[in-house]
Amino acid sequence: MQTLKDRIAHEGRNLGNGILKIDSLLNHQLDPQLMVGMGKEFARLFAGVHIDRILTAEISGIAPALMTAIELNVPVVYARKKQPITMRGTIYVESAPSHTKGGMVELLVSGEFLRPNERVLIIDDFLASGQTLMALARLLQAAQAELAGVGVVVEKTFEGGRHAMLQAGFNVPIHALAAITNMDNGQIILA
Amino acid sequence: MQTLKDRIAHEGRNLGNGILKIDSLLNHQLDPQLMVGMGKEFARLFAGVHIDRILTAEISGIAPALMTAIELNVPVVYARKKQPITMRGTIYVESAPSHTKGGMVELLVSGEFLRPNERVLIIDDFLASGQTLMALARLLQAAQAELAGVGVVVEKTFEGGRHAMLQAGFNVPIHALAAITNMDNGQIILA
Repeated sequence: MQTLKDRIAHEGRNLGNGILKIDSLLNHQLDPQLMVGMGKEFARLFAGVHIDRILTAEISGIAPALMTAIELNVPVVYARKKQPITMRGTIYVESAPSHTKGGMVELLVSGEFLRPNERVLIIDDFLASGQTLMALARLLQAAQAELAGVGVVVEKTFEGGRHAMLQAGFNVPIHALAAITNMDNGQIILA
Repeated sequence: MQTLKDRIAHEGRNLGNGILKIDSLLNHQLDPQLMVGMGKEFARLFAGVHIDRILTAEISGIAPALMTAIELNVPVVYARKKQPITMRGTIYVESAPSHTKGGMVELLVSGEFLRPNERVLIIDDFLASGQTLMALARLLQAAQAELAGVGVVVEKTFEGGRHAMLQAGFNVPIHALAAITNMDNGQIILA
């Protein structure tokens, strides 16, 4: 997605240790036209895939997931990282190591909003090690739902997450709107 | 907004202590058509107001704020509740008591995304005591930006937040898409 790549090239900052700051367009501020474009692009990339529902993780996954849900006209559920007091009954819980926060992050989804045999597209902001995406996929397995595909805004190919997901048996279409191949020495090299 | 009121009447659950569970349409699952409708309704309600930017608070404010931003074609910034490692430089911080979590919640916005003299519309999921909305408004004051209006998805009128905001001098248009006047004895009475 060229407009996204251009924005990352101009506004992205390499903070070291593989940390990409794109707060101006995804993780703090949102540009409405860019977000609409992301939804349309995900819809185009997954046009041949039957999708009943989208699953994402709060916080930064919500905007691209919602825009894709609007294009595909399916509901979206966002995994919570802390259990809200309104979350009762069957709850699916998985955890993943946090790249940016250290320690483990929990991901919780109510059984109300993941149903057996639904085909679910996972959308998130980053594909790095793949650990968060695989935790989301395990939530689907727990609910006996089916993973239909994975879409991310930015893939950091040098962290190997796509390979790790294939190795772990998640053999579904994986699409990234922009890919970064190298962040050594303060660079941001876009594919 | 009648479709929203109908959904709250059918799907809302009164969990006691003024806690309204509307996870199926706002706080966990999102319905794309309902979200599009919310954005259009906020745009209609604030049609006469000049707006440069939208401010909301993560997590559940993001979806309605983004949909409104798309209708108005302005950027949206969402206040973070924990400082991400990518947030550097000037940071505006306010805090508000949390109705649902207990204790205080911090709200942080980078100085990069609130600029002096911008006219800012605050959008959030609930207007209850008004404390979170007033903390967001104080972030604008710190940045020398101007509050242009406040839009919320659901107002719990019995908590008196609108009156508290007027008393505190926030003399701007305040619009709610749905209002609940009474939650005593397990009821959910919509205005």
